[in-house]
Amino acid sequence: MMILQSEVDITVRFSETDAMGVVWHGNYLKFFEDAREKFGLDYGMEYLDVYAKGFFTPIVKSEINHKTTVNYGENVKVQATLERHDAAKIVFRYTVWNTTTNKIAATGMTMQVFMNAETRELELAKPEFYEAWENNQNWINE
Amino acid sequence: MMILQSEVDITVRFSETDAMGVVWHGNYLKFFEDAREKFGLDYGMEYLDVYAKGFFTPIVKSEINHKTTVNYGENVKVQATLERHDAAKIVFRYTVWNTTTNKIAATGMTMQVFMNAETRELELAKPEFYEAWENNQNWINE
Amino acid sequence: MMILQSEVDITVRFSETDAMGVVWHGNYLKFFEDAREKFGLDYGMEYLDVYAKGFFTPIVKSEINHKTTVNYGENVKVQATLERHDAAKIVFRYTVWNTTTNKIAATGMTMQVFMNAETRELELAKPEFYEAWENNQNWINE
Amino acid sequence: MMILQSEVDITVRFSETDAMGVVWHGNYLKFFEDAREKFGLDYGMEYLDVYAKGFFTPIVKSEINHKTTVNYGENVKVQATLERHDAAKIVFRYTVWNTTTNKIAATGMTMQVFMNAETRELELAKPEFYEAWENNQNWINE
Repeated sequence: MMILQSEVDITVRFSETDAMGVVWHGNYLKFFEDAREKFGLDYGMEYLDVYAKGFFTPIVKSEINHKTTVNYGENVKVQATLERHDAAKIVFRYTVWNTTTNKIAATGMTMQVFMNAETRELELAKPEFYEAWENNQNWINE
Repeated sequence: MMILQSEVDITVRFSETDAMGVVWHGNYLKFFEDAREKFGLDYGMEYLDVYAKGFFTPIVKSEINHKTTVNYGENVKVQATLERHDAAKIVFRYTVWNTTTNKIAATGMTMQVFMNAETRELELAKPEFYEAWENNQNWINE
Repeated sequence: MMILQSEVDITVRFSETDAMGVVWHGNYLKFFEDAREKFGLDYGMEYLDVYAKGFFTPIVKSEINHKTTVNYGENVKVQATLERHDAAKIVFRYTVWNTTTNKIAATGMTMQVFMNAETRELELAKPEFYEAWENNQNWINE
Repeated sequence: MMILQSEVDITVRFSETDAMGVVWHGNYLKFFEDAREKFGLDYGMEYLDVYAKGFFTPIVKSEINHKTTVNYGENVKVQATLERHDAAKIVFRYTVWNTTTNKIAATGMTMQVFMNAETRELELAKPEFYEAWENNQNWINE
């Protein structure tokens, strides 16, 4: 599997905790989003670049596996791993570390597709600009 | 002051609580939003009606005064009071009751203005459709 | 598979939409939470009942599969299906309908475990009160 | 008025935008929270320090005044200004800049009080540890 990787440090907000005293499970999807943003910044493929080319890339599937909790006052680091696929989809895997405890807090994945921003129809093939970008990256053989 | 009033019951979400075990203070603005939605439904002036006429009504000012807390498992009722003003602004006052304790949890206000949805410019006068709606309501003299 | 089912209607908040004009994908986990709450109410097994017995039931796994979007002004209905398992885990499946378009917006699942609220340690066997509750339900053979 | 100031840069999340394409107004209270956190870090008075001394400092009042919008892809800087008061309250003023447009997006304020973490009762006088901290700061005469 050919991959690209990026990491982001996130300061956990008090408002992201719940009455159990830990980060509410659904907020990990915000952490995944932060990691995709940072990835886009690192590799020159931001949401607004994609939009400027006439596409949205909505999430069609997401998964989170929680391993340990993150308490208020603890922070996280998220590693995003983009997998290279032939199909017209964008698949990221994530690892969320609790950087205070040095434990893995969660792992997860998201799958995105390409949608024509105007017609809101699914694109069955990768857009040209995206393939060009893919061909330009230094993929790692995992 | 001429007013119109509406009420909505809200089931508090676990994800809306914080590590202090109570509803996070910022979430009251979501309760205010729920109350405006219910008001719009009750009086025939929903966001999408406003948008269909070519306007947004962004919030330009909001205030919350917290009196008591709302714990997880407790629910709230919000009363929204629309004030009639000559100026081109929409002013709501809110009272949030904790319906479990029968105490007032918070009071607040929001002010909205009219913005042309296309140009995103501020409207200095009330849109005609809105004035027509105002003239059609049974305002209460508070 | 033996199951129990419950349904809840949810009014989508404006604040739950994103700049694509649709409900942000992560907010479906809040809809799942609403559905679990309603299930708990319908079947007499609420979070606070579980907590009163000395347990938390944290989410350890969640999945969402998005089929169609939910726009602002559209509402949703969520059906939660509890699966009966021998192991000490709580598995719900969800179907989210866009009630305006009558299309399925998403499906998903969550898995919860039992954790001792005091020690925060995982329970390897179902707590007695939970087994008693299970034995008392009218499960449907799916 | 004697004051202390701190600044924080915030990357706006896609999930923080709404269907109008801009940051949802209520999310500014999260930006204020980020600014208080950064202030606490800068001046050695974090939430967990306060909690370790036996106190919560719940928000009892908040205000936001919106000046211009923040679109997705734009980021913000928040300046928090702590005012020194004789009374047992913590008053912050905030200025949120859209760092992309160099315009002020919003101003605001929050007021917090001291609450005994155990009894959840209001403290009428400033806790000793907090007065000691105040006396130790290099306040600016505004």
